[in-house]
Amino acid sequence: MKPIRSESLFAVALLAMLAFTASIARAADALPSWNDGPAKQSIVAFVEKVSRPGSPEFVPVPERIAVFDNDGTLWCEKPLPVQLYFVIDRVKALAPRHPEWQTTEPFASILKGDLGAVMAGGERAIMELFMVTHTGNTAEEFEQIVKDWVATAKHPRTGRLNTEMVYQPMLEVLAYLRANGFKTFIVSGGGIEFMRPWTEKIYGVPPEQVIGSSVRTKFELRDGKPVLVRLPELNFNDDKGGKPVGINQHIGRRPVMAFGNSDGDLQMLQWTAAGPGARFSLYVHHDDADREYAYDRKDHLAKLDQGLDEAAAKGWTVVSMKDDWKTIYPSEKK
Amino acid sequence: MKPIRSESLFAVALLAMLAFTASIARAADALPSWNDGPAKQSIVAFVEKVSRPGSPEFVPVPERIAVFDNDGTLWCEKPLPVQLYFVIDRVKALAPRHPEWQTTEPFASILKGDLGAVMAGGERAIMELFMVTHTGNTAEEFEQIVKDWVATAKHPRTGRLNTEMVYQPMLEVLAYLRANGFKTFIVSGGGIEFMRPWTEKIYGVPPEQVIGSSVRTKFELRDGKPVLVRLPELNFNDDKGGKPVGINQHIGRRPVMAFGNSDGDLQMLQWTAAGPGARFSLYVHHDDADREYAYDRKDHLAKLDQGLDEAAAKGWTVVSMKDDWKTIYPSEKK
Repeated sequence: MKPIRSESLFAVALLAMLAFTASIARAADALPSWNDGPAKQSIVAFVEKVSRPGSPEFVPVPERIAVFDNDGTLWCEKPLPVQLYFVIDRVKALAPRHPEWQTTEPFASILKGDLGAVMAGGERAIMELFMVTHTGNTAEEFEQIVKDWVATAKHPRTGRLNTEMVYQPMLEVLAYLRANGFKTFIVSGGGIEFMRPWTEKIYGVPPEQVIGSSVRTKFELRDGKPVLVRLPELNFNDDKGGKPVGINQHIGRRPVMAFGNSDGDLQMLQWTAAGPGARFSLYVHHDDADREYAYDRKDHLAKLDQGLDEAAAKGWTVVSMKDDWKTIYPSEKK
Repeated sequence: MKPIRSESLFAVALLAMLAFTASIARAADALPSWNDGPAKQSIVAFVEKVSRPGSPEFVPVPERIAVFDNDGTLWCEKPLPVQLYFVIDRVKALAPRHPEWQTTEPFASILKGDLGAVMAGGERAIMELFMVTHTGNTAEEFEQIVKDWVATAKHPRTGRLNTEMVYQPMLEVLAYLRANGFKTFIVSGGGIEFMRPWTEKIYGVPPEQVIGSSVRTKFELRDGKPVLVRLPELNFNDDKGGKPVGINQHIGRRPVMAFGNSDGDLQMLQWTAAGPGARFSLYVHHDDADREYAYDRKDHLAKLDQGLDEAAAKGWTVVSMKDDWKTIYPSEKK
C-alpha cells in the first residue's frame, strides 16, 4: 500500500478532535441540571484535564479524591440544619424519662415548641443538647434511631422528606466524578453516625467515605456480647481547621477537588487548593431566595464571608444557585 | 423444537456443577502458598459461600469488608516490631540536635546500641520515645521521612528489606479477597502515618483503608501555606478495644472477616464474629521457629493467649505457620 502521509495525519487529527468533542459532550450531558455557564464549564474542564490520559495535568485514579461538605452543599440547611430537628425530636422522645426537663432550659422551651431555644444557649448549651440526644446508647441502637427518624422527618417549609431536599445538580456532580474514577467523600461538621445510615442510598457515598464530627465510643462485652457504647464526650469536631485534620485522618491523601458552602469549609478548600498539580475548589453560593434560601456574609449559622473573598482572590469556582442551577431538587426534574 | 425436559435439566445441573467446581478450583489456585489443610479450606469455603449469588449466606459487595492486623499478621514483628527500629533510627538521626540525650535515658542506651533500652522504661518511656521521634513536623514532612526510611531499612537477622519480610500467603489472601469483591483494610496498633506511605505498594491497600494509632494534628497557615502540624500528644490508640472503635470510626460497618495474630486483635475478632450472618475470624499462630519465629502465650510484646482459647472455643480458624504455609516470604516462592 502506498503511504499517504498528510492524509493519514489529517485523519488522525480529525479522529482525535472528534473523540475530544464527544467526550466533552458526554461530560456536559452528565450535568443536565446545570445551566451552561462558567461554573459548569469549570467543573467539566477540570475533570477532563485530570482524567484524560496523556494530559499534562493527568491524575492517576487512586489519587482522584473529591470531598464534599454536606449541610448547604449537598442538602438544604435552612431554616435550621437538619440535625438540629433531630435533636428537637429526640428531646421530645426522651422527655418522659426526664420529668425535670419540663422546668429546665433549654429543654422546657424546646418541649413547648420554641425552636429558637436550641440556639439561644450558645455553643455550650448546644453541645449539651447534642450529648443528651446522641449518646447513652450503642452504635447499633443509635444507627436504628437515625434510620427510623430519617425515614419520616420532613422539612418544615416544604413538607418534603429531608432526604428529598438534596441538590439535584450536586447529585449529578457526585455521579459524574465517580464515572470519571473519583472516590467521593463527605466531610461534614455534622455527626458522622447521623449521616452514615442514609448517605449510601441518597448520595451513593458508602459509610467508609463519610467523615464527620463524632462522640467517643467504648468497646464493652455485655453478657459476652461485644458492643460499642456512645459516651457523652466529644471525640472530634469536623469543622473549620478540623476538616483538613479529618481528611488526613480518614483518607490520608490530599483531595484533588473540594466542594463547600460556608466559612466552615474554607480550610478544607485551602488544604485542597494548596496541593501540587491541578486542584479544584468550589463554593455553592446560596443566592436564590425564591427557589431555596439566600444567605452569605452575615448568616448566623453558615456564614460565607471570608470564603467569598478568598474564592474571588484565588479564582475558585463560585456557584450561583440562582443562575447556575436549572433545578434545585430532584422533584423538579423535567 | 421438541422439549427434552430431563435431558436439559441434567445439562443445567451438570453445567452448574462444573461452574461450581471450576470456581472452587480458581479459588484454590489463588492461594498457592497455602498447604491444603483446614485453614486454607476454611478461607475458601467462607469466601465461596458469601460471594456466590443465591447462596443463603450471600453478602452484597458493599458489605464485604475484611480487616487485617499488620505486625505479625501481614509482616514479621520479631525480634522487635518494625516501627521500634524506626524509633531507634530517628533517635540517632535527631541526636545531634539533642546533646542532652548522651546522658539521659533511654536515649543514652539507644545511642550506645542497646536496643533493650527501648522496652526497659515501660509504656510511659516508649510513649515518650514515640512522641519525640514521630512529631514536631508536618504531615508531609513525616511522610517523606517514613518513605526514605522504609526504602532502605533492613531486618536485623535476615538483612532483607522489612517490606520483603511480608507473608506471601497473606498477600495471596488479600488479593483473593479483593478479587471476590472485598475491600481490604489494615487495622493496626502501629502508627497510621507510619504505614500509609508504603501499604499501597506492598499490600495493595490504599491510605484511606489504613487504620492505626495516631497523634493529634493541627491545621495551620504558615506564611499563607496550609500545613498539618503533628503534635506530641496521642490522638488514638488503635489496639485491643480500640480496634473495634477505630473500625467503627473509619469504616462505619462491621467487618465480615478479621485476621489477627495476638491478644491485641481479640476484640477486633470478637466484634467481627458477633455480627449477624456469616462471619470469619482467623488467628495466625507463630509456631515456626525454623522459618520464622515461634511465640504465643508468654510473649512479651505480642501475646496470643486468651485469643488461642477463644479461637478454640468459638471454632475460629487458627493458622499454623509451620503446617499451613508452604512459603513464608515472597523471596521463597518457587
